[in-house]
This record gives sequence, C-alpha cells and structure tokens, in this order.
Amino acid sequence: MTPISPSVSLFFRLQLSLHMFRKTFTCVPKNEGDILNITPEIEATVRESGVVTGLAGIFVAHSTAAVTTIEYEPGVLSDLRRALSVLAPDKETYAHDSRWGDGNGRSHVKAALVGPSLTVPVEGGELLLGTWQQVVLLELDIHGGRTRTVIVTVSG
Amino acid sequence: MTPISPSVSLFFRLQLSLHMFRKTFTCVPKNEGDILNITPEIEATVRESGVVTGLAGIFVAHSTAAVTTIEYEPGVLSDLRRALSVLAPDKETYAHDSRWGDGNGRSHVKAALVGPSLTVPVEGGELLLGTWQQVVLLELDIHGGRTRTVIVTVSG
Amino acid sequence: MTPISPSVSLFFRLQLSLHMFRKTFTCVPKNEGDILNITPEIEATVRESGVVTGLAGIFVAHSTAAVTTIEYEPGVLSDLRRALSVLAPDKETYAHDSRWGDGNGRSHVKAALVGPSLTVPVEGGELLLGTWQQVVLLELDIHGGRTRTVIVTVSG
Repeated sequence: MTPISPSVSLFFRLQLSLHMFRKTFTCVPKNEGDILNITPEIEATVRESGVVTGLAGIFVAHSTAAVTTIEYEPGVLSDLRRALSVLAPDKETYAHDSRWGDGNGRSHVKAALVGPSLTVPVEGGELLLGTWQQVVLLELDIHGGRTRTVIVTVSG
Repeated sequence: MTPISPSVSLFFRLQLSLHMFRKTFTCVPKNEGDILNITPEIEATVRESGVVTGLAGIFVAHSTAAVTTIEYEPGVLSDLRRALSVLAPDKETYAHDSRWGDGNGRSHVKAALVGPSLTVPVEGGELLLGTWQQVVLLELDIHGGRTRTVIVTVSG
Repeated sequence: MTPISPSVSLFFRLQLSLHMFRKTFTCVPKNEGDILNITPEIEATVRESGVVTGLAGIFVAHSTAAVTTIEYEPGVLSDLRRALSVLAPDKETYAHDSRWGDGNGRSHVKAALVGPSLTVPVEGGELLLGTWQQVVLLELDIHGGRTRTVIVTVSG
C-alpha cells in the first residue's frame, strides 16, 4: 500500500487553561431529504468563542436527522439521497411503522447510519475544512417543518 | 434551501481549567445483532464526573461492534439490522472469511461503516440528547457472548 | 436484552490545566479504494504530545476521503470496498457527474456516509484501540495521487 509521507506541518500549543464555548442554534428544514449547509453558523460560533486552535464539536439532538460533511452542490446532495434510499427504501416495510404507525422508520435507520456527531479542528480561528467540504444537517424525517436543534461546542 | 434561523440560545463558559474524567464499562451482548441501550451507563459517568457543561466522548474498542444514536424501540432496531444486511448480506462471500475462516467478514464491514466513536454534549450535568434519541452499542459479531469495552471520557 | 455489567475500571483525572497538541500529516494514496493504516502516525503524535490520559481527534479535510476503524487485513478491506459500492455503484448515474463532469459522484457519496472525523481515547500515552482495530484513511476519489491532509488533535 502507499507509504505515508513524513509530517509536513506542526503546530504546538501549551495553554494555561483551555476553555469551552457553546452555542445552540435551530433550523426548520421544509421537507424530507433537505440538506442544509450549517457551516456559516458553526464558523460564526467559532469566531464568537475566541478560540484560535481547538476543536468544534457538532451534535444534532434528534433521531431522524444527522450531520456529516459533503461538497455543498445540488447534484451530490441528490446522489446522497439516492444512496440513503438504497439502505432504507421508501417502499420497504418497517417494523417501526407497523408498531407505531409513524411512517418514519426509514428516517430513523438513515439517521443512525450517518450519525449525529462530528468533530472539526479549528486553526487560526477558522474551521480546518477542505476546499470542497461543508458541514451539513440532513433532514431525514418524512415530516418537514420540524425545528432542529444543533449544538456547537468549541474547545481550545 | 431552507433558511437557518438565528441562534435561540447561548451558553458561555470560561474556566480556569477544564478537567477530564474517564470511566470504562463492559457489557456482554448475547447474540449478533443485539443492540444495547448504553445511555444509563454514560449518564452515570457524566454525573460522577461532576462536569456541568462539556462533552462526553464514547468509544467502543472493537472492530466488530459500533456505537450510534437511535430511538430505542424494538421495531426501529430490527429495521436497522435489516438495513445493515443490505450493505453486508449474510450470504455474501467475504474475502476476510476466505482468508481467515472467521466467518465474521460482514461484522467488520458493518462496524467500519457505522463507526466506533461518538461525542455528545453535556449541559446541566446531563447529556443533551433528543427526546427519542438514545446512545446504543451494536453487537455485530457473529459470535455473541464477547465482553465489549466502552470507554467514556467526559471533559468540561 | 442483555444486561450491562457494572463498571470494571475507573480512571479519574483532575488537572490544573488540560492542553492541546496538534499535528498535521499528509499521505498520497495511489488509487481509488486504497485504504491506509494511519495508526502509526497518530500514535507518534500522541507520544509527541506528552498526553497520558486524553483524546485524539482525527479529521480528514477532504470531501472524497474518510476515516474509520477496521481490522487492517486485506480481505476485510476488499469486503469494505464492495459494501461501499452497494451504496454508490460504479455504474450508477450521478447528478454530480452530469452537472460537473467530475466523474467522482460516487466518491462524495461514500465519503459523506463514512464521515471525516473520529475521536479515540488515549490512556497511558497510547491509543485505546482494540487488538484488531486500526485507524484507517479511505481514499474514495476516482483519481489517485492526491495529497490527503489528516489533522490529529490530542487533548489531555
């Protein structure tokens, strides 16, 4: 397999004390499958925190939504929706729906697989994301219009 | 796409020093596909840590188990099992099994896709999970009865 | 479901100050589907950090690469590649490719599902990984030969 090159950069930081800053924001995606670019909200929180070198923890406090990173471009977003429907197709019979009549069995399955948390490094007071990499919230519930809570915790 | 509303709440915290508290617990799932609600163990660790505002890192130190969040309801859990079997069907031929005769190729694949780590925010000394959102350990090995180690690290 | 046993070990740590240490390294995977064992680089960073008890955050700053843990064994790695191609098959038509002609729609989809971040506990100056559990970088782009940046942040 490909050899790994020696380190190219090194940042050292010893602090008398780290601190932690938290901000919670909400959004209301309209429809199932909506994918929201929440990078600006996270960047604003990082700036407000005053943290220069550290980590930004992102967490969505719901079982039918998820967070990940992706290139925020409509084509890729629809490709991601299609891939999630391979795992949890619309026409599948869900035990969750049979038991509870919720109709959102597929939403729970997709959310559990993508996951609710993400940790992004901060350097120079900015998120160390790739050029084509944005942080997104995935609305996976069959009912849009729900208020979604995202908790951003910056430490450094 | 849907606009994101302004922040609804803000918690600021500057500390002279953050601290870190760690507790490791084990569980012994009986069978492949068992999904255990480990939220109470994590909540107990958070309380013991004395951390009010912070983060709880959860990590499962195995390559055939995983952690995520889900509504802990039997219907959804079986729906999740089905979805994982789309990715790694029982009847597929696995190169891992051909090489090693382990028979748990599918377990490794599922575990790598769901992932071993999760970071959940803590506020008011409690996990900031959604109402229908629990932290779960997925036993993915074909052999049950294995002791699984979960490492909880609370910082704040 | 299986009962969870009481805690088996407990580590407590109160510090006057936590610190944070960061190191960035790069690697150049040759081909799509290459999976690199980056555990040695992360372990070296942990040692260099001097952190005894803490957390190592790993982040890949790209939208067509991902990180996870797996048993680093060629059979399992090819099984994982196959599973990812169920989600995002080579022969699928991707909206991303139709719009941009990139040809790497499948790469973006796989990367978003596996995810870019991972947090591994550190104890005794070492990563608390399972015996058969290594940290890996997945090269998912159709073009190999790209320089991939991995950011390791050790706190403790």
